[in-house]
Amino acid sequence: MKLKGFGYILTCLTLTVSFSASAQFAKPEDAIKYRKAALTVLGTHFSRLGAMAQGKTPFDAKQVIENEAVIEAVAKLPWSAFVEGSDKGETKAKPEIWKDAAKFKEAQDRFMTESLKLSVAAKSGKLEDLKTATAAVGGACKNCHDNFREK
Amino acid sequence: MKLKGFGYILTCLTLTVSFSASAQFAKPEDAIKYRKAALTVLGTHFSRLGAMAQGKTPFDAKQVIENEAVIEAVAKLPWSAFVEGSDKGETKAKPEIWKDAAKFKEAQDRFMTESLKLSVAAKSGKLEDLKTATAAVGGACKNCHDNFREK
Repeated sequence: MKLKGFGYILTCLTLTVSFSASAQFAKPEDAIKYRKAALTVLGTHFSRLGAMAQGKTPFDAKQVIENEAVIEAVAKLPWSAFVEGSDKGETKAKPEIWKDAAKFKEAQDRFMTESLKLSVAAKSGKLEDLKTATAAVGGACKNCHDNFREK
Repeated sequence: MKLKGFGYILTCLTLTVSFSASAQFAKPEDAIKYRKAALTVLGTHFSRLGAMAQGKTPFDAKQVIENEAVIEAVAKLPWSAFVEGSDKGETKAKPEIWKDAAKFKEAQDRFMTESLKLSVAAKSGKLEDLKTATAAVGGACKNCHDNFREK
């Protein structure tokens, strides 16, 4: 599966446009609650795609598109909620997030890029494309969890 | 502010098309966690619009559109997670949700309809439209919380 030109443009736009409204948390615990919530929504819908890709549930092109649309809307949300001071409290976030911000940003970018490829794959209506794309997104999730999230 | 024809079509589509992928929760507690997460994301972005509408933060048409886009994607998600058996556990959901399903559906529909009007209002770029629409959405939130959520 290859990204079309449009996909590349979309990738660039998404990676460079900051989500300007998202740094508005009154308290660090609000940011923690929000990012966990966004990741729960993201994880739920991604799991549904993963189940289809792995043959655990029947492949349904319409459901793929519905779930992917949620992922597309929510994928960009959690990252700006890793605000200063939100390393303490009800969180498994590792201090490395703030100590090595560049590496954390790289992990986000990898996830965002793979999510955009997933968007293209979902719209193709092909199970093979979904398999490739969910495996790559899953790898990006794991990369970030391994490096930046306590077990 | 009047809904255009397109808005009406959109309303009808959204209210009648079931979100077919969303009844997939392995356990009631997964459904509870998911709906709370979706409502947290929804509440966060709606609060940002409310703050602008009330003059607590500066009106910014671009931020309005960004926040509204998240609301549009997430507004439909929580409702199908009020599955049978998810009245117990870490939830403030009242038994009335399951006892009077028709009234709960009415409350959802009111919220969905007002959310769609908010979508139109957000795109108008006018503060007055935002004020009207956020007040109506806020009323729909309150209606549901008053009737179906423990204090």
